[in-house]
Amino acid sequence: MKDHNRKENWSYACGLTCPVPLTDHDSVQLAHGSGGKLSAELISKFFQPRFSNNILDRLEDQAVLELPPGRLAFSTDTFVVDPLFFPGGSIGDLAINGTVNDVCMCGATPLYLSVGFVLEEGLSLAVLHRILLDMEKSAGRAGVRVVTGDTKVVHRGGGDKVFINTAGIGGLGDDLRLSAASLRVGDKIILSGTLADHGMAVMACRQGLSFQASIASDTVPLNGLVNEMLRASRGIRAMRDPTRGGLAATLNEFARSANLGLMVDREVLPVRPEVAGACEVLGIDPLHVANEGKLVAVAPPEEADKLVAAMHKHALGREAVVIGEVVEAHPGLVALKNNLGVLQVLDLPMGEQLPRIC
Amino acid sequence: MKDHNRKENWSYACGLTCPVPLTDHDSVQLAHGSGGKLSAELISKFFQPRFSNNILDRLEDQAVLELPPGRLAFSTDTFVVDPLFFPGGSIGDLAINGTVNDVCMCGATPLYLSVGFVLEEGLSLAVLHRILLDMEKSAGRAGVRVVTGDTKVVHRGGGDKVFINTAGIGGLGDDLRLSAASLRVGDKIILSGTLADHGMAVMACRQGLSFQASIASDTVPLNGLVNEMLRASRGIRAMRDPTRGGLAATLNEFARSANLGLMVDREVLPVRPEVAGACEVLGIDPLHVANEGKLVAVAPPEEADKLVAAMHKHALGREAVVIGEVVEAHPGLVALKNNLGVLQVLDLPMGEQLPRIC
Repeated sequence: MKDHNRKENWSYACGLTCPVPLTDHDSVQLAHGSGGKLSAELISKFFQPRFSNNILDRLEDQAVLELPPGRLAFSTDTFVVDPLFFPGGSIGDLAINGTVNDVCMCGATPLYLSVGFVLEEGLSLAVLHRILLDMEKSAGRAGVRVVTGDTKVVHRGGGDKVFINTAGIGGLGDDLRLSAASLRVGDKIILSGTLADHGMAVMACRQGLSFQASIASDTVPLNGLVNEMLRASRGIRAMRDPTRGGLAATLNEFARSANLGLMVDREVLPVRPEVAGACEVLGIDPLHVANEGKLVAVAPPEEADKLVAAMHKHALGREAVVIGEVVEAHPGLVALKNNLGVLQVLDLPMGEQLPRIC
Repeated sequence: MKDHNRKENWSYACGLTCPVPLTDHDSVQLAHGSGGKLSAELISKFFQPRFSNNILDRLEDQAVLELPPGRLAFSTDTFVVDPLFFPGGSIGDLAINGTVNDVCMCGATPLYLSVGFVLEEGLSLAVLHRILLDMEKSAGRAGVRVVTGDTKVVHRGGGDKVFINTAGIGGLGDDLRLSAASLRVGDKIILSGTLADHGMAVMACRQGLSFQASIASDTVPLNGLVNEMLRASRGIRAMRDPTRGGLAATLNEFARSANLGLMVDREVLPVRPEVAGACEVLGIDPLHVANEGKLVAVAPPEEADKLVAAMHKHALGREAVVIGEVVEAHPGLVALKNNLGVLQVLDLPMGEQLPRIC
């Protein structure tokens, strides 16, 4: 925790000389949150150019949306990551991708986002601009539109540079009913790729570790991969992205919701060597570390093969692997098996090793 | 600004001895935001009992919703009010009512909310509990359900006790097209009640003014009033709730969107005497002060009479009054007329007199 009050590590905020829209100020003022002239300027010069679309541009207090028939998915996430910029991404990428991923894990197509900013007085407008550029790029990649937003400013010391909340809406047909409660004994557990990249990128950056440059966050929108998976099989039982709390949290949630056991083969879990090394240096289990571009899916054995094959054809699923299965033994618990066949309970982390990781 | 760093004024947080769910901690720990055991405990002991419903209780990463056919309205707001508790309400009430009101101003029926918390390490769990009780009560009053949520914890000094984001979804039929751009010359401007109650309640509380007890926030959900108005007339052009920036900001937004002038009679604007007194003491124009339970509607003259009559029958519209009209002169500008007939331009506030009012 000792590093929390030091100055932002700006090494990843390079490029801050990029042309920023003209304004009388170069940092956030309390009046930017007043609802008055500076609020209007912040919207027209910073937010609107990045997110412009025919719904947002009406500048009403709410967006009016047309959605395809069927049900909809709704999710929210707030991002307080420290530092704001890290190898592989920024709080801007996380704010878009995190909510897109939560929305699409039930099989929905993410369509619309709201964005709520809490800005600290004194935040550089160039930093805000850089974050907004990342949000624009990520929203474009995910194919979602920001349609409504809000900005509050808190006094210097009352916040920490910038916090971003996003809420997302996705369209969902009437046939899919993904739920962790629907898991059955014998189902296979599939992981889409390597573990712990995001969390260790942020930690390495924050701690100033020498190997930080070789570790990058995996933050990406997963809705493209999910589309391909649903095209290959409609038999998926449940999907979830293992963010905070890592794979351990997701698997425990699955086991508890289904009231069944999960048995995972530790030896097949993919972790990049440099990430494994960083975990060892910091004394952190990669299974407890946040990912921002990975998913876990559970499916019956005959569907699992089709799914893994489809995932291997997608850029974000090249390293997809079956990591274990659902068992009748130890309901509600997750067991890890090592290469000697020794079993160990995989529990939730009790404390907080990785504060403000997303 | 001098008061921002002093300790919370707890005089309105009395009743903190109310029974709080059993927990090993009496304040927020970093681990409450870890995604691990304490996160799960916070959800099961604090959030779920307050907001429980069959959608939220699935505890998936997203809510799956069925909506009535037609379009939907979507809005978001973040609340950073200081102090957390003030006469007439709390950040909990604001977080529900603020988004309910933004959603219903287009004529939609608010149905579902997401909630995102940013908690500061060390926040008393009793205070959080009290805020959640207020949210539960306000959501019940508004008839909306919290269906998805997220909690982040920032280190001590990295936030200010608690910030709350809500996003809301409402159902909207296919016929209503309320928009500030649809205003026409001759339309009447209706205000639902007294001005500046919310902002002055917070300011008086914050400044420790002796008259603070006699001023209370007007925070309420306005969807019931909107329902009655729509039942009386489908001819409303536009509605908006004059929150941050006050009536001045709302009227200026209307004038600019319509590219028409607005002429408002200063003498008919309702302001409670004690609120007017507080404004005078603090040198603040009540037209620039936030309201949290008032709305401004614009309608053709023949509809305006029906609307005002319907509003007078509703508890939240008893003091509804026509305050002016849309004119051809001075497009994009709002003119205030006093009892001598003197005109004055009503502009947006340039600076920030009332930081963290909502």
